[in-house]
Amino acid sequence: MTSDALVIFTPSGKRGRFAHGTPVLTAARQLGVDLDSVCGGRGICSKCQITPGVGSFPKHGVTVSPDALSEWNAVEQRYKDKRGLIEGRRLGCQAKIMGDVVIDVPPESQLHRQVVRKAASIRAVKMDPATRLFYVEVAEPDMHEPSGDLERLARALKDQWQIDRIEAGPAVLRKIQPVLRKGNWGVTVAAFRDHHGGPTRILDVFPGLYEGALAGLAIDLGSTTIAAHLCDLRNGEVLASGGIMNPQIRFGEDLMSRVSYAMMNPGGDVEMTKAVRTAIDALAVSVADEAKVPPQAIMETVVVCNPVMHHLFLGIDPVELGQAPFALATSSSLSLPARDVDLTAINPEARLYTLPCIAGHVGADAAAVALSEAPQDQDDLTLIVDVGTNAEILLGNKSRVLACSSPTGPAFEGAQISSGQRAAPGAIERIEIDPVTKEPRFRVIGCDLWSDDEGFAKATEGTGITGICGSGIIEAVAEMRMAGIVDAAGLIGSPEQTGTARCQPEGRTHSYLIHDATAQNGPRITVTQGDIRAIQLAKSALYAGARLLMDEMGADRVEKIVLAGAFGAHISAKHAMVLGMIPDCPLDKVTSAGNAAGTGARIALCNIAARAGIEAQVTRIHKVETAIEPRFQEHFVNASAMPHAVDSFPNLSSVVTLPDVSFNTGGSGEGGRRRRR
Amino acid sequence: MTSDALVIFTPSGKRGRFAHGTPVLTAARQLGVDLDSVCGGRGICSKCQITPGVGSFPKHGVTVSPDALSEWNAVEQRYKDKRGLIEGRRLGCQAKIMGDVVIDVPPESQLHRQVVRKAASIRAVKMDPATRLFYVEVAEPDMHEPSGDLERLARALKDQWQIDRIEAGPAVLRKIQPVLRKGNWGVTVAAFRDHHGGPTRILDVFPGLYEGALAGLAIDLGSTTIAAHLCDLRNGEVLASGGIMNPQIRFGEDLMSRVSYAMMNPGGDVEMTKAVRTAIDALAVSVADEAKVPPQAIMETVVVCNPVMHHLFLGIDPVELGQAPFALATSSSLSLPARDVDLTAINPEARLYTLPCIAGHVGADAAAVALSEAPQDQDDLTLIVDVGTNAEILLGNKSRVLACSSPTGPAFEGAQISSGQRAAPGAIERIEIDPVTKEPRFRVIGCDLWSDDEGFAKATEGTGITGICGSGIIEAVAEMRMAGIVDAAGLIGSPEQTGTARCQPEGRTHSYLIHDATAQNGPRITVTQGDIRAIQLAKSALYAGARLLMDEMGADRVEKIVLAGAFGAHISAKHAMVLGMIPDCPLDKVTSAGNAAGTGARIALCNIAARAGIEAQVTRIHKVETAIEPRFQEHFVNASAMPHAVDSFPNLSSVVTLPDVSFNTGGSGEGGRRRRR
Repeated sequence: MTSDALVIFTPSGKRGRFAHGTPVLTAARQLGVDLDSVCGGRGICSKCQITPGVGSFPKHGVTVSPDALSEWNAVEQRYKDKRGLIEGRRLGCQAKIMGDVVIDVPPESQLHRQVVRKAASIRAVKMDPATRLFYVEVAEPDMHEPSGDLERLARALKDQWQIDRIEAGPAVLRKIQPVLRKGNWGVTVAAFRDHHGGPTRILDVFPGLYEGALAGLAIDLGSTTIAAHLCDLRNGEVLASGGIMNPQIRFGEDLMSRVSYAMMNPGGDVEMTKAVRTAIDALAVSVADEAKVPPQAIMETVVVCNPVMHHLFLGIDPVELGQAPFALATSSSLSLPARDVDLTAINPEARLYTLPCIAGHVGADAAAVALSEAPQDQDDLTLIVDVGTNAEILLGNKSRVLACSSPTGPAFEGAQISSGQRAAPGAIERIEIDPVTKEPRFRVIGCDLWSDDEGFAKATEGTGITGICGSGIIEAVAEMRMAGIVDAAGLIGSPEQTGTARCQPEGRTHSYLIHDATAQNGPRITVTQGDIRAIQLAKSALYAGARLLMDEMGADRVEKIVLAGAFGAHISAKHAMVLGMIPDCPLDKVTSAGNAAGTGARIALCNIAARAGIEAQVTRIHKVETAIEPRFQEHFVNASAMPHAVDSFPNLSSVVTLPDVSFNTGGSGEGGRRRRR
Repeated sequence: MTSDALVIFTPSGKRGRFAHGTPVLTAARQLGVDLDSVCGGRGICSKCQITPGVGSFPKHGVTVSPDALSEWNAVEQRYKDKRGLIEGRRLGCQAKIMGDVVIDVPPESQLHRQVVRKAASIRAVKMDPATRLFYVEVAEPDMHEPSGDLERLARALKDQWQIDRIEAGPAVLRKIQPVLRKGNWGVTVAAFRDHHGGPTRILDVFPGLYEGALAGLAIDLGSTTIAAHLCDLRNGEVLASGGIMNPQIRFGEDLMSRVSYAMMNPGGDVEMTKAVRTAIDALAVSVADEAKVPPQAIMETVVVCNPVMHHLFLGIDPVELGQAPFALATSSSLSLPARDVDLTAINPEARLYTLPCIAGHVGADAAAVALSEAPQDQDDLTLIVDVGTNAEILLGNKSRVLACSSPTGPAFEGAQISSGQRAAPGAIERIEIDPVTKEPRFRVIGCDLWSDDEGFAKATEGTGITGICGSGIIEAVAEMRMAGIVDAAGLIGSPEQTGTARCQPEGRTHSYLIHDATAQNGPRITVTQGDIRAIQLAKSALYAGARLLMDEMGADRVEKIVLAGAFGAHISAKHAMVLGMIPDCPLDKVTSAGNAAGTGARIALCNIAARAGIEAQVTRIHKVETAIEPRFQEHFVNASAMPHAVDSFPNLSSVVTLPDVSFNTGGSGEGGRRRRR
């Protein structure tokens, strides 16, 4: 039995053991992994392409040898010769499992592709872009007073636009002569000025009056997803938005697994750098295509991300971020040619700006949230939490701003949850449990009906009901707590204790059944005791981080809470507070900022003064390192209860009365011990 | 007969017609082209590698079709599979001539490789380099006051070296963390400051106190040869020098043929750019190897060259330089990352500096000569001529400096001369003709003996006596003039007129026999009437350019002449003046500056103030465009006589009396008409 091979699929995290010789596609189907196939495994359609990982994956507890999959076969070779295949890819229907292996399903092989929820905020941004267009009329060359075309263009920019010093790189030098002549000495210059001064750099030249696109790309580079907003640099309008999975997931789901991957595998950081750069380059093209804008019209990119992603994107080994004292290679903002980080599909002279990092665990994404939400301008003491695989937490008002990060893990994103899945059609995103009958009703992504509405079954025929996404699991746990199915300690009661057959024994603990589709060959969707524990760990980390900042601030209460991140938009203040993710606060003072990091990136993209502003602001933010604060552990333990073992929640109590149940019967129900991370 | 294929070899320019199916190696041997072979044509040694050109070569009057050589054969394939072969290369012993073709013999296939004469001048340069080393001790990271390693390094540079603002690119960001830790927080920084201000850029970091090499490369990029001096950036010492042929020769010998090649062949400029960049990158490595310095220790490069080379090197189509008004894309100096011009073998953060161009025909090489010779500091009216395929001419003193260029063509370099060859062992470089007996004696490169010295034959056995190099042909023509073998108009006399059987009829003109080695299967070395005409054209262009500047200056005489260029070192003032290459002047006021352009490059490499200085100076130099000056043609015609038809040469007359001979017998001796360029 143990001679079977362990197979772990990413990004889903689904795993199982299979006999040697099992085709990858077969294994994927048995595990319910979302791997497409049109030709039914004949090696023709290539929809089932997968990428095997090789090397050490400490997070998954496996080391993958190069022969973990069967050798490249004739069918694959024929396909490759005929249609081409990306380096490292295999056909899932042909490659057979021969040993323990980690297999990545790339986005294009997923039938139910990720709906990246990070939509552009509609917030209007004050325009003051670094790159602007200038039309000039340039003097013709004169043999008697010889001077270069660039020098006469510089003179024109000075005389007509008061632009003092210019510079131009080889790509522009190559274009300048034909463009000046084609435009009959009238040209439009795309010129970039750095907010730290220095010469104005010519990024591109166009014959005559250019009326085409001038675009910038605001990139929110998350550990799990990469979201990009293509913005018109003339008016700030979002021309298109797009998102893809971060391809680094196959090296590790969370940040620390990626750091480990870099530590354990020589050159692993280079692989990850290449993967993320290639993905961003491709994302730029796809977003530009969607907006019907040539990729060369993208003159600027702004990237916000956490410190590990920051380092990996910039080509820096993140190993120092995996151990105290968590030293960043650089914490400053960077302004450099985008080609220096291999973004080559966009304008060859395009610029890259990265926001400053606040500390080794508090990155440019937190800086972007600070830029977007401006805690330093608040009268009320405001807590801002940006929940992702890592949570960034800011607390402050006009007097002072504090920041920390907390390792929530991926549970809030539906990962490491038994029925969890990423936000995609078919995923349960909303749930309500009747406190009397204990019966659930729910909604899935892609359908506006509730599960007890007429026509729901028909409306969800296409997508099926496939799992629970991040916001769904939070709501489910909170509803279970409110319905008395889970007690304050996080234990799920037995059918007898709860009065519902939906609470079903599972080993020595219980699960709550939300939906059983096994009759239609679909999954059985439950919330297990392990799921509750995973959510408790995540929410405790988040709460403890916030509490640490409150301690530092000398505050017992916060006056305002802003939920930032993809996910803040999808959970209610009440549910978050029932869970004890956030401290108590008037419910109407809990707001969602949407993707505040993405908004910050857009602001920095469109407004050069904002860059200088956040650079200055970041130096004034006081950083708290959760990893070395002794009280963090205490806060963490106390925060395990729902909502909290010690802290009172008066505002929550005024609207919700939580059932006073306790299912601890002397140890037999303590599922926590059996939880596997 | 005309169905035979025309074969032109570069860089030698030798040409002939051969039956279809003739192997390239055979053709090369019949023409005396220097193409190596060790295995005797068995396709084993690969010493006979050649590169066929494809496309239109207006200068050679041929269009080469892709099937001008026989198809790739099994022997070549076997060699390539086993040992590898550079893209585009063929084995000369295997490839057969099937049509008109231009064939380049790369340097490594030449048995008698070029001795590039451009040796580093011994001139000491005042050191003030842009790149310097700074040792600093950096504070360790502190979790309570988080800051990036780069930021603490910046603080150390500020505190310990008063360096205010720094920046670093991805290559350095990647190194900074391991280097700081390896050096136990003591590191040496290679930092570059631009002379126009802006932040100091960190080019590299080394653990502890770095005592290794810190080098810069001064590159004199000529149309024909590329010379490089590797300099120690700490003391200016020349660590090694090297030179290679400019691989662009296969696209055209002179500048205008290359411009034509770019005009006639789409993408031709890109090909030429790639060729020269690849060559410079390889030259950098070979010079570094010679100095036993890692190529990554090269932190800076300075390039001087004429405008066409300047554009082609920077990736700019030179087409505008081929037609009035000869507009440069840019005339300013450039300071940019060397990787932007694909110099990737050296330090990834290495910088490139190009000197400013003076005008469309007067390039950064002329600026480098001005930097080296400083005409603006002279009391005497000084004429500086830098003779290459193009001649750069400067005239000036403390009051004013003028500049022009003149298209001398490659005759002065031994090209387009019947027995001409580049400076290499076996080439005649010195010659004397007895005015009474009219018998010559000579010296060849690689042997210190004169041809009438005892042991000469034995001493030259290895090299043979293979041709005449550039300085040799000038001396030969001047000696022929002094010995009364050539008249003032440039006609070679008959045996009867000159009294020597060495003057031999050749068609309707005469040649002068210098050496006949046919008995030993060697060449017959003569100076033909066509050779005299080629030299007359070249020297007339040079003289006319100088005269034009004198007109502009309102001067009839110059007080001082500096012969710059590889070649100035090898010709005597007397011979140059007999020929009328240069205006009359006291002979002791004619000096050689050696490779002044290369010296200028070295100065700019080692002294940042010199960069600012020459940039300012260039704007004050008055440019004269020979192509549009009506008097140029008149000066050119008058300069055809030796030394001159109109201008007197009193200083020359005081030391040399030229025989008053005239061999014009009514047109039959007018070889000029039959001359083919």
